[in-house]
Amino acid sequence: MSSEKSFAAGSPAPGPVPKDQVRLYSMRFCPFAQRTRLVLHAKGIKFETINIHLKQKPDWFLEKNPDGLVPTIETPAGEVVNESVITSEFLDEVYPEKKLLPATPFGKAQQKMMLEHFSKITPHLFKISSARRKGDDVSGLEAELKEKFTSLNEYLVKRKTKFFGGDTITFIDYMMWPFFERLGMFEVQHCLDHTPELKKWTERMLEDPTVKNTMFDMDTYKAFYKSVAEGKPNYDFGL
Amino acid sequence: MSSEKSFAAGSPAPGPVPKDQVRLYSMRFCPFAQRTRLVLHAKGIKFETINIHLKQKPDWFLEKNPDGLVPTIETPAGEVVNESVITSEFLDEVYPEKKLLPATPFGKAQQKMMLEHFSKITPHLFKISSARRKGDDVSGLEAELKEKFTSLNEYLVKRKTKFFGGDTITFIDYMMWPFFERLGMFEVQHCLDHTPELKKWTERMLEDPTVKNTMFDMDTYKAFYKSVAEGKPNYDFGL
Repeated sequence: MSSEKSFAAGSPAPGPVPKDQVRLYSMRFCPFAQRTRLVLHAKGIKFETINIHLKQKPDWFLEKNPDGLVPTIETPAGEVVNESVITSEFLDEVYPEKKLLPATPFGKAQQKMMLEHFSKITPHLFKISSARRKGDDVSGLEAELKEKFTSLNEYLVKRKTKFFGGDTITFIDYMMWPFFERLGMFEVQHCLDHTPELKKWTERMLEDPTVKNTMFDMDTYKAFYKSVAEGKPNYDFGL
Repeated sequence: MSSEKSFAAGSPAPGPVPKDQVRLYSMRFCPFAQRTRLVLHAKGIKFETINIHLKQKPDWFLEKNPDGLVPTIETPAGEVVNESVITSEFLDEVYPEKKLLPATPFGKAQQKMMLEHFSKITPHLFKISSARRKGDDVSGLEAELKEKFTSLNEYLVKRKTKFFGGDTITFIDYMMWPFFERLGMFEVQHCLDHTPELKKWTERMLEDPTVKNTMFDMDTYKAFYKSVAEGKPNYDFGL
């Protein structure tokens, strides 16, 4: 890819997906798109990225993907898949190298149950952040978040493993990670203070080369998030 | 199983899961549990049912399944899986007879994307019904539901197939069906009037032996739903 700059309405459509690659439609700072980026990097899949201006989406993007969401992936065969978890599972199935999901049906089911549980945590982060911006009291919401972090902490304590699926990083860790990377951006980093195992997990994740490869520093996240809060998301921040 | 009557708090715990069976923890009228029942019946899996009194859950059930939700399945090996779609996919993977999900990763991804889309429709049914009960104007909500039904109708028109995954019933049809079976209960049956292909799909589904095997008549649903609205769900209605 020649540039990471986002494609906005009116921009020319990219050509066909190169034969030996996957194309990822993304937004550089999107935690959901980062899930797919983590899977692509972890599995060593050759891919190109087309970043989308989410406030002014190109027509050719909406034609491929009427919901207009990122992440979306496209294969050279013209298969279009969206939704972060669905794209991630699709890639893990299609590319046999370094399987991220467990091989057994029960192992897979366990990770999906954990993910379902986790999906009830993420909206909290956005809620706390927007309430704080409005000057509302967030102590109740923070208490709820801490309780949810405590349940994740207990899960690690019970399992006695370094990561959520075992002693190595698997699918579930990459699906959860993008939100933990952004705790500082949501100003809820302190909610980890009473969950030492979960905190250690975040420290272990930060050492992973794939995580390092896909992350931004906190100043960048904060600057981007500020532009979002002001109603003018700067998708090309830092380029 | 000796009785379909629901197990409430204080009831003795059932013994271990019989060796050649799967146990389903269910509630007879729950649309989510019906998804799992459809899969169990369609695949001819030997199973027993333990119905749970959802307002007075037995402790032994909460120990197995702290969220206390149905459907939950338990295998003789002690594997416990909950969430309707996760249990259904687990059963489809474990029991190779009559596969309901497509074999290809893209085929699976397509059904999951459709299901994700559909998951935004179901809350509408409950919303319309509760608004109507309060005497609120539901015309706006109904217009939204019709729009969503139109998109499902267009999908069938474009695919030119009898069912959502092809010309035979597959996973996605069984995941969507329980809510269509209850349109009369939610008093939104008329929302199908302008979506002829979707309506034809419901008629085809009604002919399926598995659907016939798991369904209740509308009078039963209405009586049960009335008991729910009055705050005293009669889980054992009709027994």
